[in-house]
Amino acid sequence: MSRRYQGKGYVHGHSDRELERLQDQASTLADLLHHDTYYPQGSRVLEAGCGSGAQTRILARRSPGAHFTSVDVSPDAVEKARVSLAREGLANVIFRQADVFHLPFDSESFDHVFVCFLLEHLQDPVRALACLKGVLKPGGTITVIEGDHGSAFFHPDSEDARKAIGCLVEIQRRMGGNALIGRELFHLMHDAGFASVRVSPRFVYADGNRPDLVEGFTKNTFTAMVEGVGEKVRELDLMEPAAWQRGIRDLYRTAGPGGTFCYTFFKATGVKE
Amino acid sequence: MSRRYQGKGYVHGHSDRELERLQDQASTLADLLHHDTYYPQGSRVLEAGCGSGAQTRILARRSPGAHFTSVDVSPDAVEKARVSLAREGLANVIFRQADVFHLPFDSESFDHVFVCFLLEHLQDPVRALACLKGVLKPGGTITVIEGDHGSAFFHPDSEDARKAIGCLVEIQRRMGGNALIGRELFHLMHDAGFASVRVSPRFVYADGNRPDLVEGFTKNTFTAMVEGVGEKVRELDLMEPAAWQRGIRDLYRTAGPGGTFCYTFFKATGVKE
Repeated sequence: MSRRYQGKGYVHGHSDRELERLQDQASTLADLLHHDTYYPQGSRVLEAGCGSGAQTRILARRSPGAHFTSVDVSPDAVEKARVSLAREGLANVIFRQADVFHLPFDSESFDHVFVCFLLEHLQDPVRALACLKGVLKPGGTITVIEGDHGSAFFHPDSEDARKAIGCLVEIQRRMGGNALIGRELFHLMHDAGFASVRVSPRFVYADGNRPDLVEGFTKNTFTAMVEGVGEKVRELDLMEPAAWQRGIRDLYRTAGPGGTFCYTFFKATGVKE
Repeated sequence: MSRRYQGKGYVHGHSDRELERLQDQASTLADLLHHDTYYPQGSRVLEAGCGSGAQTRILARRSPGAHFTSVDVSPDAVEKARVSLAREGLANVIFRQADVFHLPFDSESFDHVFVCFLLEHLQDPVRALACLKGVLKPGGTITVIEGDHGSAFFHPDSEDARKAIGCLVEIQRRMGGNALIGRELFHLMHDAGFASVRVSPRFVYADGNRPDLVEGFTKNTFTAMVEGVGEKVRELDLMEPAAWQRGIRDLYRTAGPGGTFCYTFFKATGVKE
């Protein structure tokens, strides 16, 4: 999924609805994505690409003794994150505007690095990982979480729905990103020179037995995200409008009785030797 | 995946290589698919669609006190299964040739029913489930495992590889089956009238850290299965031969350095009320 822009702009825009979508996503997926991430008392952690803080609040709560420095290339997003975390009384995070390719930190100054839904937006993810490796202490770890829109499948199946998802992938590609990046984390981490690389897929499966996932993920996270690029799809003439509308309707239909929706996130960890 | 024919014939044929592929598949995936299936001492279990016994031997070993009756529509498959399990000294299984739509058993005569890679080959999976429900005692459980070829994605990505998989899906469709059935288990079980339906996805992820899965699943199970319909693809002229060959080469390439392969099985359980 995705929260921030970098270079050519943020594919999902910055509307209030988008902010709501990101919070829905973060809380629905918090356990699945974050249950095995904990940073010890006193450790210094860099979160690169914090956006408006949707993951930051989860990290900061899970590791109350760690000191987080959360950066994003967008000054607006950083300001929103700062205000919202201060309102929640989370005091173990410092926010700062910064570009991952030009980090304003001394080399080897962090114990850990955390990256979520950032690499998918970058033209050169390996270089970004190498920049992050530069500010990491030897023996420090990096944790990377990314989605993969090519992992989505559902019932009832629908060619229009698959094409609508393909439009989002194509728009992100034209903006320099890669919405199919999850499956590539293994080689990207290796290419950036990390050791002990481990990739762990996080499978989301929503059916009628999991109404919170159907609501929070199928509808309010994934389908809302695809729907959100509708205007760009029209502008770029990527799909016939009637087919697009059928595609979106069909995605919402997978949240109906008997429907199922599947999606895979990938979480990778590596060590700087 | 799939082991048996029914109606219009078995999509993968009956060669020795296919038998080897099925055994590779079964042992590689045994824990993932079967770790949470156990039948108590003295219980009577019907396995419908046992094929040549690749799953039967795992079931029979895991629940040594249960009495299995394993049936398949193919007399040849049943005979192979009988010989091979006798050779292994597994005495808690009776084999019998039988059609799932005309089961030669009294109604309500089994405590549990187990079905693996059967429904994907049937034109009317709901009717098959209803027939199985007929021989199940009230309060008894059914366990169903199926794959879903639309769940496959991989790195390096390849349009030819995706089309090659699509040919297998199309051939199975023309034979009356559905290679995308995994995502549908939730509604199929409901439609057949089972209660307490629970579906649990089983995600296979193979990268360079898991050489046994790369070998046993990516190469010897999945890619070998797609490759196995090559002759039918040529006969039916479903794909240009050079593109087909690139597709198979590209699938094998996902087993190379930096490659990744993802696939999802679905395991569903339900209760007869």
